[in-house]
Amino acid sequence: MSSTASPLAPKNVPAMPVIAGVRLATAEAGIRYKNRTDVLLAIMDKGTAVAGVFTKSKCPSAPVEWCRAKLKGGKARALVVNSGNANAFTGKTGRSSTALTAKIAAKAVGCSESEIFLASTGVIGEPLDATKFDGVLERLAETTEAGDYLAAAKAIMTTDTFPKVATATVKLGKAKVTINGMAKGAGMIAPDMATMLSFIFTDAPIAPAALQALLKAGVEDTFNAVTIDGDTSTSDTLLAFATGAAAEHGAPKISRASDPRLKSFVKAFNQVLANLSEQVARDGEGARKLVEITVDGAKTKASARKIAMSIANSPLVKTAIAGEDANWGRVVMAVGKAGEPADRDKLSISFNGIRVAKSGARDPSYDEAQVSEAMKAPEIAIKVSLGLGKGRDRVLTCDLTKEYVAINGDYRS
Amino acid sequence: MSSTASPLAPKNVPAMPVIAGVRLATAEAGIRYKNRTDVLLAIMDKGTAVAGVFTKSKCPSAPVEWCRAKLKGGKARALVVNSGNANAFTGKTGRSSTALTAKIAAKAVGCSESEIFLASTGVIGEPLDATKFDGVLERLAETTEAGDYLAAAKAIMTTDTFPKVATATVKLGKAKVTINGMAKGAGMIAPDMATMLSFIFTDAPIAPAALQALLKAGVEDTFNAVTIDGDTSTSDTLLAFATGAAAEHGAPKISRASDPRLKSFVKAFNQVLANLSEQVARDGEGARKLVEITVDGAKTKASARKIAMSIANSPLVKTAIAGEDANWGRVVMAVGKAGEPADRDKLSISFNGIRVAKSGARDPSYDEAQVSEAMKAPEIAIKVSLGLGKGRDRVLTCDLTKEYVAINGDYRS
Repeated sequence: MSSTASPLAPKNVPAMPVIAGVRLATAEAGIRYKNRTDVLLAIMDKGTAVAGVFTKSKCPSAPVEWCRAKLKGGKARALVVNSGNANAFTGKTGRSSTALTAKIAAKAVGCSESEIFLASTGVIGEPLDATKFDGVLERLAETTEAGDYLAAAKAIMTTDTFPKVATATVKLGKAKVTINGMAKGAGMIAPDMATMLSFIFTDAPIAPAALQALLKAGVEDTFNAVTIDGDTSTSDTLLAFATGAAAEHGAPKISRASDPRLKSFVKAFNQVLANLSEQVARDGEGARKLVEITVDGAKTKASARKIAMSIANSPLVKTAIAGEDANWGRVVMAVGKAGEPADRDKLSISFNGIRVAKSGARDPSYDEAQVSEAMKAPEIAIKVSLGLGKGRDRVLTCDLTKEYVAINGDYRS
Repeated sequence: MSSTASPLAPKNVPAMPVIAGVRLATAEAGIRYKNRTDVLLAIMDKGTAVAGVFTKSKCPSAPVEWCRAKLKGGKARALVVNSGNANAFTGKTGRSSTALTAKIAAKAVGCSESEIFLASTGVIGEPLDATKFDGVLERLAETTEAGDYLAAAKAIMTTDTFPKVATATVKLGKAKVTINGMAKGAGMIAPDMATMLSFIFTDAPIAPAALQALLKAGVEDTFNAVTIDGDTSTSDTLLAFATGAAAEHGAPKISRASDPRLKSFVKAFNQVLANLSEQVARDGEGARKLVEITVDGAKTKASARKIAMSIANSPLVKTAIAGEDANWGRVVMAVGKAGEPADRDKLSISFNGIRVAKSGARDPSYDEAQVSEAMKAPEIAIKVSLGLGKGRDRVLTCDLTKEYVAINGDYRS
């Protein structure tokens, strides 16, 4: 946790409303950090549906394995999150550690261990001493309140420079329902995952299978379209909890994701995911520029995604942006290395709306002074038009600065 | 071209012998740089066989397209290389530029344009004014000498901090034959290519098809096993020229790569490729550590290669090495994200021979002070044992430093 927030941090933090059926509390358990909260306990009312998506790493953390197994039940009563230690690559110790944490939490909350969900973030390979939760979780369970989501978002930070929250309120049937979310970044962020940790809460009455379908669809163009450094964490976890409390004031119970009554809800749900994932990109380690890469004219959306990710993960593109250099030659390089259909002589590229290359060569009308000025902005939009088909996609990333190297050269030691 | 050589530069530069049938000359054509050579002309005797491998980029440079087309003839009389401008993404201008360069060179040398091979390295997207070669190539053709290979290697440098040459002498039949090579790096270096530019010369009498087969096989575990930043250039070119002059003192004429008389030659040829590609890794932009990554116990060699490359291209692994931190958790992360078969609980990892992780957890005997001391070395060997099969592979890379970011944030502007 840095003492200075990224210059890309959102200017306004939304007031986070209460979600009926969710209570939160945070504490200092001294897992690794001193003088800051590092444990979050969220308690949900009985009957809360849960859905989740996780890292595709072949070496997932112990909490990820725990959640995957418990997700089958579809019901959650509590979420325990710690920062400072990822409990990843900790072997049998790691598994006992998750089991012990769940046991302590289940006792404190008064539920079955299979209704406890766990997430850990921080250093990999260090054993997590779960006895540190003993006493702490019981105390937290007694002090949970209906909701300081910002405090919760702070407790789960590692190298993040600002807490990430988002909220939306929308009609479901004739009832008002609320969606709150939080996330943490900020390195080891890459596609095919659901950021390191993110949690969504809603009072909408949505059955587990429907919630899972919404989450899986929603993540594709939000969290999975963000990359900081192409490095996929062992711990990436995105969980959604639906308490169903809104049913009490008339929200219809939803059992299928295709239910037409969900239309507005899905839109708001995806906006919360998009908002949080953009905040993750804004808080990329060492980031000074938010970079949006749009690829159109590709053969397919999947092809556009691969090309956009190739650009977004290119160290040469990212360092050029850090140097405020509209180095479109490196964009060409990244298009070329993606291995997707591309015709050099049809390619056009623009930076912040200024076209610098068209039809496979420098745009004759391209004014270096104008584009140099545009590159000073904190938000850079790179657009690549392939001119081959109708495939289009968009990803978010950030620049690669000396600060990224400094943060990651010093993090563990 | 930096004024300070990388601390990883080889301590000794070999004396480069003459290759019968090859003459070299360099000049200052003022393509981009001032007060340094930037054009190399190599003239080969009639009957010289040529082979080549090139970037797999979908947006290759104009010279790469030129060489690919001319390679079909199998014969070469001259090689023209310029630094400072890659003639890539230059559209029709780029194609006319290669055609004009070849025309000027063919006239100067007195051969067909189809026997001229071209390579360019430097900035992408800037039109290359080939009229600058007019006069220069004629003068060079008159002044070529049997061989200052070091001067040639210097003329083709861009951000390289030292010229890269290698040589080997070996028996072919009863005759002595010589292999000389040169290469340039130093950014935009990634697998599936043949470094940015490298040229091999030999007096061995090897037919084009056999030379092509040797080159294709030799590159797999040398140039294709080196990555600096995962960014594949649009210009990567590796050409091999065999003048056949050694036939005059009894070297047998070789028409098939499988000829058993080639055994020693192949070994020496591959050593030259390995030597040059290691020098490319040693001169990675901003590099302070040479990093060798060995993966064994994988299902297959191809699987070991993918995992090794995932580690070698991970910004988090590379910055940890820059910070002299044996952060094996990040190695686990990179194994996990490779998507290849891996069993977390069988994984072992060592740094410079010190095992830090075994059976999916921290090695109980692991001494942080000892490994921290070992990480101060300029050469770091990371070994990952998967414990699944017999697949093994090795790749070379370097660390990711603030200097890499500085070099690439300032390169074009």
